[in-house]
Amino acid sequence: MMVLVSYDVAVTSPGGAARLRKIAKECQNYGQRVQYSVFECILDPAQWMRLKNNLEKIIDREQDSLRYYHLGSNYKRKVEHIGAKPSLDMEGPMIV
Amino acid sequence: MMVLVSYDVAVTSPGGAARLRKIAKECQNYGQRVQYSVFECILDPAQWMRLKNNLEKIIDREQDSLRYYHLGSNYKRKVEHIGAKPSLDMEGPMIV
Repeated sequence: MMVLVSYDVAVTSPGGAARLRKIAKECQNYGQRVQYSVFECILDPAQWMRLKNNLEKIIDREQDSLRYYHLGSNYKRKVEHIGAKPSLDMEGPMIV
Repeated sequence: MMVLVSYDVAVTSPGGAARLRKIAKECQNYGQRVQYSVFECILDPAQWMRLKNNLEKIIDREQDSLRYYHLGSNYKRKVEHIGAKPSLDMEGPMIV
């Protein structure tokens, strides 16, 4: 299934930049960065619980926010890209 | 229905900052800014065609990108917010 993770970290607050790096690192274990603060993650329910748990341990809930969008397993027809930088097909073969 | 619009504009390119402002203005006609570059728009199919058309006239397809996520009409149970700045309920009553 796909979960879109969008985060908004207060990078100017103490520790903000470090939290931002940690959140990006966690998300990149499961997906691709499609925008500066937006990740598309493909995961099963157990991986999702782990990612969610890890992200919520990192953020400062007083200052940062996370939004999750559950796009299900039929996500390909729900996503449309226009313009530069078309995204990779994470489940397709990777051509090196 | 909800369409999530995520944009990535090359603000350092000539005209980039102006395109960013125009895109933000278009999106804000239909929704709320939930992150710096992410909008949640609630619209009917005709409004969606209009918004999409307007956005795609603004962007420079060589440099900028737009991603649309179609969350359908049953979007409330697909969105989850953690941490600061809980979002407004755009369809609920507005308390001034």
